[in-house]
Amino acid sequence: MSSNIPMIFWLVPAAALIALGFARYFFVRMKRQSEGSETMRTIAGHVRKGAMAYLRQQYKIVGIVFLVLCAFFAVLAYGFGVQNPWVPFAFLTGGFFSGLAGYIGMKTATYASARTAQAASESLDRGLKVAFRSGAVMGLVVVGLGLLDISAWYLALEWFYDDVATTQKLVIITTTMLTFGMGASTQALFARVGGGIYTKAADVGADLVGKVEAGIPEDDPRNPATIADNVGDNVGDVAGMGADLYESYCGSILATAALGASAFAIAPEMQLKAVLAPMLIAAVGILLSIIGIYLVKTKEGATMKSLLKALGLGVNTSSVLIAAATFVILWLLGLENWVGISFSVISGLVAGIIIGQSTEYYTSQSYKPTRKVAESSKTGPATVIISGIGLGMLSTAVPVITIAAAIVLAFLCAIHFDVANMLTAQNLSLGLYGIGIAAVGMLSTLGITLATDAYGPIADNAGGNAEMSGLGPEVRKRTDALDALGNTTAATGKGFAIGSAALTALALMASYLEEIKIGLQHIGVKTIEVLGRAVPVETATLPDFMEYYQVNLMNPKVLIGVFIGSMMAFVFCGLTMNAVGRAAQSMVEEVRRQFREIKGILTGEATPDYARCVAISTKGAQREMLLPSILAIVAPVVTGIVFGVAGVLGLLVGGLGAGFVLAIFMANSGGAWDNAKKYIEEGNLGGKGSDAHKATVVGDTVGDPFKDTSGPSLNILIKLMSMVAIVMAGLTVAYSIL
Amino acid sequence: MSSNIPMIFWLVPAAALIALGFARYFFVRMKRQSEGSETMRTIAGHVRKGAMAYLRQQYKIVGIVFLVLCAFFAVLAYGFGVQNPWVPFAFLTGGFFSGLAGYIGMKTATYASARTAQAASESLDRGLKVAFRSGAVMGLVVVGLGLLDISAWYLALEWFYDDVATTQKLVIITTTMLTFGMGASTQALFARVGGGIYTKAADVGADLVGKVEAGIPEDDPRNPATIADNVGDNVGDVAGMGADLYESYCGSILATAALGASAFAIAPEMQLKAVLAPMLIAAVGILLSIIGIYLVKTKEGATMKSLLKALGLGVNTSSVLIAAATFVILWLLGLENWVGISFSVISGLVAGIIIGQSTEYYTSQSYKPTRKVAESSKTGPATVIISGIGLGMLSTAVPVITIAAAIVLAFLCAIHFDVANMLTAQNLSLGLYGIGIAAVGMLSTLGITLATDAYGPIADNAGGNAEMSGLGPEVRKRTDALDALGNTTAATGKGFAIGSAALTALALMASYLEEIKIGLQHIGVKTIEVLGRAVPVETATLPDFMEYYQVNLMNPKVLIGVFIGSMMAFVFCGLTMNAVGRAAQSMVEEVRRQFREIKGILTGEATPDYARCVAISTKGAQREMLLPSILAIVAPVVTGIVFGVAGVLGLLVGGLGAGFVLAIFMANSGGAWDNAKKYIEEGNLGGKGSDAHKATVVGDTVGDPFKDTSGPSLNILIKLMSMVAIVMAGLTVAYSIL
Repeated sequence: MSSNIPMIFWLVPAAALIALGFARYFFVRMKRQSEGSETMRTIAGHVRKGAMAYLRQQYKIVGIVFLVLCAFFAVLAYGFGVQNPWVPFAFLTGGFFSGLAGYIGMKTATYASARTAQAASESLDRGLKVAFRSGAVMGLVVVGLGLLDISAWYLALEWFYDDVATTQKLVIITTTMLTFGMGASTQALFARVGGGIYTKAADVGADLVGKVEAGIPEDDPRNPATIADNVGDNVGDVAGMGADLYESYCGSILATAALGASAFAIAPEMQLKAVLAPMLIAAVGILLSIIGIYLVKTKEGATMKSLLKALGLGVNTSSVLIAAATFVILWLLGLENWVGISFSVISGLVAGIIIGQSTEYYTSQSYKPTRKVAESSKTGPATVIISGIGLGMLSTAVPVITIAAAIVLAFLCAIHFDVANMLTAQNLSLGLYGIGIAAVGMLSTLGITLATDAYGPIADNAGGNAEMSGLGPEVRKRTDALDALGNTTAATGKGFAIGSAALTALALMASYLEEIKIGLQHIGVKTIEVLGRAVPVETATLPDFMEYYQVNLMNPKVLIGVFIGSMMAFVFCGLTMNAVGRAAQSMVEEVRRQFREIKGILTGEATPDYARCVAISTKGAQREMLLPSILAIVAPVVTGIVFGVAGVLGLLVGGLGAGFVLAIFMANSGGAWDNAKKYIEEGNLGGKGSDAHKATVVGDTVGDPFKDTSGPSLNILIKLMSMVAIVMAGLTVAYSIL
Repeated sequence: MSSNIPMIFWLVPAAALIALGFARYFFVRMKRQSEGSETMRTIAGHVRKGAMAYLRQQYKIVGIVFLVLCAFFAVLAYGFGVQNPWVPFAFLTGGFFSGLAGYIGMKTATYASARTAQAASESLDRGLKVAFRSGAVMGLVVVGLGLLDISAWYLALEWFYDDVATTQKLVIITTTMLTFGMGASTQALFARVGGGIYTKAADVGADLVGKVEAGIPEDDPRNPATIADNVGDNVGDVAGMGADLYESYCGSILATAALGASAFAIAPEMQLKAVLAPMLIAAVGILLSIIGIYLVKTKEGATMKSLLKALGLGVNTSSVLIAAATFVILWLLGLENWVGISFSVISGLVAGIIIGQSTEYYTSQSYKPTRKVAESSKTGPATVIISGIGLGMLSTAVPVITIAAAIVLAFLCAIHFDVANMLTAQNLSLGLYGIGIAAVGMLSTLGITLATDAYGPIADNAGGNAEMSGLGPEVRKRTDALDALGNTTAATGKGFAIGSAALTALALMASYLEEIKIGLQHIGVKTIEVLGRAVPVETATLPDFMEYYQVNLMNPKVLIGVFIGSMMAFVFCGLTMNAVGRAAQSMVEEVRRQFREIKGILTGEATPDYARCVAISTKGAQREMLLPSILAIVAPVVTGIVFGVAGVLGLLVGGLGAGFVLAIFMANSGGAWDNAKKYIEEGNLGGKGSDAHKATVVGDTVGDPFKDTSGPSLNILIKLMSMVAIVMAGLTVAYSIL
């Protein structure tokens, strides 16, 4: 057995453990900081209690869903024999680790907010470091658990399939491992959609009753929904984002490994290296991300620009180091065409940076687009909405062209720029492997990029805590600066999450056909007929399968799939948009009830029942998210049963195309509205309280579900549909009507 | 020659002439009606003059664009020899007839408005008849000119290619004719986008200065932009809609003819019949539409419901008659599988009706969805926007599923439900022919459905005229009833236009590969290599081309095409949304200037310079629409040069998938916002002037560019991109980088 596992492999679990070690170290260091005054501790305690109330309810529902799906998979695997027998277990571990990553990230965030406020009272640098390194806990836990799970499964399966011939073994191992992504996806869907609905329902609900009806200021502890609002930041932006990217991270590595196993199936020596390459790049990425984390620091009185630079220094240094290290590690590994593959990795890495920059350009009030939205407020809320939607739609151009360029470059680099024979069976496999490893490249910096994301809500909550506890103006100026920085990183983080989801979904789609192959073998199909020739399934190439299932653009099944996929993206968004509206309504009713029934809340003599508010909002979110989630899981299954493999691939491509663009549009429109409001609040165009300000508040409220619920949930939709297709491949090949 | 043109063919030009005859008859009868009082005539005269001012400017720009493109095509055809030599001429006639249809329709509408108001002062039935039959002028002119152009080209080419063998001849004729669609498309793009920007710029501009700044009521003749606003209804909703559907109408017939010529290339006798079938169905549709037009009448004091029934009686009777006549005509023609093909026709016909019904359900205040949007106004404009967007996104489900079902059924009916061999070369061609003829079926009722569309703005203008001329309350009650009916028909008309555009684009895409074949022959390619076999281009099948160009979903060129296509839909909408904002701003400045410089406008002593306002708005619209139009034309060309045939097909599929769904979303959100406002104005939820009303006014303003500019323009985008691809097929096969 050991002969098949080269020494260099052990770098993967080692990096995973190092990541978890640093995560623990950062967590313990953070816990040792002072949590500040009695008031600060009380407030933080309420938020923490609320977040736990959310998790309890969330995991109850997710647990039931997992049990049902697991039973279903067991029936398919052991009853009908149309599925890999490992699926039920792989599904469970994927879901468990994804949930664990979200849990730890959120717990850390809720401990860190008051401590960040307290540290900011000492210096800006101290505040930044506490918040950022707490964010890094989440980043490192996600990548650490991801690689740990991957290593463990790899070792277990390698041992289990010890007696299978090497070439076949790696194909079986990688296609099996791929299915654990569905567990992660399902968990992520609940975290992202539920969290997204939760946070915006609480936000809107708190504002409507508190500010409008009761006339108390924002973030006032007398408002029972205030804590829910703060919990929401953690729930949606920390746990949701973490689960989402955990899934992209594992999905991209596993899909690339599967593509590598098949692309190099003819050369057993290279095959193992191609399978290990994505894992090793991820491992190196972890180590170099940690170096980047240590580089983030600032001086007192830093401007927004220099704060952005401080974070940029960390991320960019990591990126450059990873780019260089990729060459080294692939050379050490001895992978064929290691130079070309390294450039594939870099094309993904660079694409991620460009998408982040473009998101910043379109959503930051430092640039023209968002300022134009702010200026359109002079003619009222309608023109704010129109210009914001126009901006969001236009902003899709750069990310799409960037991803398109990354796809071409990654593909061509992986095949020695052999343009003339670009689409031969061998080159197609190699090129798709290149696309997959570009996704891995984009996500290799996740340890630090996710830290900058998770940093946002921590700084936000710290600001809220400082505000509520009445800390001095100097401290509040510092927390405000940290908070403003967090808004920008949240927007760029969203762009990054969408871009990586698109590349990951593409890699998953490519590996779908590997699962089809396994599925055919499972049901005993030995050969397929391709243009009159009988081709053995085992040696059939990608183009053979394309021809066999006629997955071309004139096949009406493919076209219908594309239509349905495009529609899925819109219907999913429509459902989540409406869900926020309804969930906010239940929150409004609960707050009104507490004001009415619990005497003394408004005079400050009684404590509102925060947990009840949190639980109600959670229940509302969970109820509202069931329909969109079921839709996302059912659509690929039904499409597969009616229209077969061609229909499913059409669905995935349609969903990916429309979903990717729609997600960017919604995230950027929402971000621009948010910052257009902030721009006016900074004193421009009449400042706070002016008619222009009121018009941008409308924009901001519309933007809330755009950027925090519907837009980000689309990431998971496109990945989950691919995952469901992969896991259900056996069912699709065994039974389909047309 | 005559032996090749069967007697039954002459039904086509005959029906065209009958349509034009009836159009002229309705026009003359309308002109004979009294135009009412001095004031009514003056107002109508201003609108007419304004509309002409628009057309002059529009045709100037379109003329230049046509000259440039024509020169470009001439160079490609005669210089590089990569294009059909007929293209420059076909391009010009398509553009000319499309423009002529819009011109006549708009002219009729501007004559009819005052006459409708005057007729309504006699009775509701007289008002309805004058307005509806004036709308029918446009409907009949569009179908009449369409079939006339098609007949003339068919006869001319049949004569020209007299010496070519029959099977080849029909393929050459039909693929040549197809290119005239690009002229119609380009003209339609300008009419739809320019008209759409125009009408909303005038609308928003008139409201902002007139109502808000000068404090004069809506439709007040002292407001220089009022006339432009009324002109806008004609420009956008009559001329734009007419050019759009002229293009769908011709495009679907020509694409189906081309698909028929290739599907039946092996059976010369059947081939001619398959080419003629779509033309004959269209011809029969015209005659039966005229019967339907005569059925539309009403009684005094009719409710909205009975008015809808009155129109429904006309449309539904025509539909049922056409369905029955299809069987008869295809049986008379002796087309192979005439029963199956007839059912393909009916699947399109029924899909059109279902999409219309679903649009009505989602956008009419008689149903729950729009009422929910109205109710969300209780919590302000933001929730109105959120719920309207949610509604629009959810409303995409029914039309997409309907179109998907129509595609499957049309395909399967055309191949005798031979599911097991669904995708053999022969069945694929036949099935795609079935999809094309379903599009023809959907559009066969165009003579009457377009009448109900064009009726809307006529009734709208009649209401405005009655209001401004101070006609009695009884008359205004009648014109209000006619106007309200027009709002509903406008919404369903939009759904129908989108649905037919999607099916037409699909048929165009399928016929694209026929153009590729011709293109290859043009540049002297005799055989293509398909999986090691050398296949002569002349006999190569659709699957052969799919294989040769690898137009499958794993080809990165296809995937990149899909991404870019999806993005195009969003960027195009973003550009048009922003254009409305900017054009409205120029209008605001012009109105302010006139108030300032022309003394006595506000006291009624001086007449404002309506024509200047109209010209400024027109120029603004034309300037703003250049960028989106150029983008729509350039994108397929550039994609073709870089990524070849596979990339172009990806682009078309991505654009069609995302564009279709996006168009429905925008049209339905916009329609629902409009009617939510009307619902409140009817006295619900506080009525006019309440906070709830103000919130829905914001929704309505946002909805204006959604439903009248960006949404409908997408129809043309998806058809024009297909047309450009078709015309540029020669260039794409001759030169492409990857």
